[in-house]
Amino acid sequence: MERLIQKIIQGDKRSVAKAITIIENDLQEKYDLLQHLYLHKRRAHVIGITGAPGAGKSTLVDRLIQEIRGEGLKIAIIAIDPSSPFSGGALLGDRVRMQKHATDSGVFIRSMGSRGTLGGLAKATKETVRILDMMGNDLIVIETVGVGQSELEIMNVADSTVVVLNPGAGDSIQAFKAGLMEIADIFVINKSDLPGTQKLYHEIELLIETTKQKAEWKPPIVKTISTEHQGIIELWTSLQNHFSFIKEKGILDRQRREDLAKEFEEILHQFFQHQIEQWKKQDTYHVIMDQIYHQKLNLIDVAKQTYQQLINEKNE
Amino acid sequence: MERLIQKIIQGDKRSVAKAITIIENDLQEKYDLLQHLYLHKRRAHVIGITGAPGAGKSTLVDRLIQEIRGEGLKIAIIAIDPSSPFSGGALLGDRVRMQKHATDSGVFIRSMGSRGTLGGLAKATKETVRILDMMGNDLIVIETVGVGQSELEIMNVADSTVVVLNPGAGDSIQAFKAGLMEIADIFVINKSDLPGTQKLYHEIELLIETTKQKAEWKPPIVKTISTEHQGIIELWTSLQNHFSFIKEKGILDRQRREDLAKEFEEILHQFFQHQIEQWKKQDTYHVIMDQIYHQKLNLIDVAKQTYQQLINEKNE
Repeated sequence: MERLIQKIIQGDKRSVAKAITIIENDLQEKYDLLQHLYLHKRRAHVIGITGAPGAGKSTLVDRLIQEIRGEGLKIAIIAIDPSSPFSGGALLGDRVRMQKHATDSGVFIRSMGSRGTLGGLAKATKETVRILDMMGNDLIVIETVGVGQSELEIMNVADSTVVVLNPGAGDSIQAFKAGLMEIADIFVINKSDLPGTQKLYHEIELLIETTKQKAEWKPPIVKTISTEHQGIIELWTSLQNHFSFIKEKGILDRQRREDLAKEFEEILHQFFQHQIEQWKKQDTYHVIMDQIYHQKLNLIDVAKQTYQQLINEKNE
Repeated sequence: MERLIQKIIQGDKRSVAKAITIIENDLQEKYDLLQHLYLHKRRAHVIGITGAPGAGKSTLVDRLIQEIRGEGLKIAIIAIDPSSPFSGGALLGDRVRMQKHATDSGVFIRSMGSRGTLGGLAKATKETVRILDMMGNDLIVIETVGVGQSELEIMNVADSTVVVLNPGAGDSIQAFKAGLMEIADIFVINKSDLPGTQKLYHEIELLIETTKQKAEWKPPIVKTISTEHQGIIELWTSLQNHFSFIKEKGILDRQRREDLAKEFEEILHQFFQHQIEQWKKQDTYHVIMDQIYHQKLNLIDVAKQTYQQLINEKNE
């Protein structure tokens, strides 16, 4: 493990990939690895990019990589795959295109799929961010599709969240409204050569005015045409401005402290879950559950007894 | 509590509302209430209805209520509000329209908003379903917006899930693909008088053919025009067929056993969380977290010690 950590710090991509696999698969070594990760002070700027399928997120990320690499910064991408195997070809195509950066030693790309629970993916993303930070990346970009509650949870991992919209996408604002304003630090109108750009701009402006009246940070709206590399520098500048803002205001510090506290509790629950799993291996488990199912035992009573039992066991 | 339970069983709407509030707000009485709920054998058919905003779900539910009430069955609706206060007027308007059924003693309607975590809403929905079942409803309809992962979790509470699509909604199939086939037991093409209906029908048919080749249940596709009450009887028949199918195949039984086992574990974790909350009230908590933040203590080591401590405390 010490050697793996050393290699991660040296920026060895294969070791980083191995560490992420350990995290994702919840392997035995996970806590060993985490033990090292939590001793590393976080430094990287974590950027979240979200928007509807087809909004042009991958191309935007691609152009942003070009821009940032030009400044000699190291960058890592986490591409979150939708939860289902039916993710479609377009998405995959974009990501394959993005792989051209994969041969650049200053760019690391990793796809993550949802395994098991939703919370599981957000947690794995958070831990992967720690690995990529330790690897020495200056920027870590998390790209997700859509802005459902699941994406909101993943976007919570980001310091700066970019919401990508398109003009003329009909009900996009309507559909995205819920939760949108809560996470967006920067709006991007991509494909801004299409008709409807001004209309969308004013809609977003209005939303910001009505909901962010007293906010110290008013999300800028950046117009881009990523296929023509337009607006990318403006986006990059906005991202840097936002990161400076949250650092100066102590927002970043507070957020990272809260993250740690939450992660701490999650780990306590994981320890507890391990103990539950052991208990479930007993023969009596199925007998008890069967009796609960047939209303012969009360679930709450049994839970209370089991809890006491689990807690006392450790003491022997 | 005994009286509250009695009144719920008698179908008293005010008592049901009160019980749901207890569940939602995680009040002290919650476990008392659950204790009774878990002794009630579930009987109602739980139907989930989901689809994009504007797909016509509320109108569809409205017409379905009319149909089902005509057969003298009791029905309850849980309308899940999006997580944000920016849910827009249209949605609200639909729900107000639905309230015309609220004066019918055989119809109970409740809106639920997302409070706190996502998992929290799915859990509250599950417990609300138990209350509504105890109330004597034959059908419980859960209506959500969109098919993100959050809605998938909520839809897991349903026995039969209906996915509502519209013709000509552009990339809807594309956007919904992920996760769609996993939850859809019945497809509805609403507004099926619009152009593009046949195209959408064939797209769905193809999806079913390619992904459900070996499945025993192939989701039927029902065309409706809910504003004109067309296709509602067909939808109701499909729902009944699906419920019979999962009962006969033992799927419902297995699902409800698995639900119970999951709920049991969740309750154990809640007990544990209560203990964590107590521990967090100590002065040392903030000192420890501060040291973890500054890499002076290792989060994993502290978590291990804390876990031992939490577990031993109870024994005194």
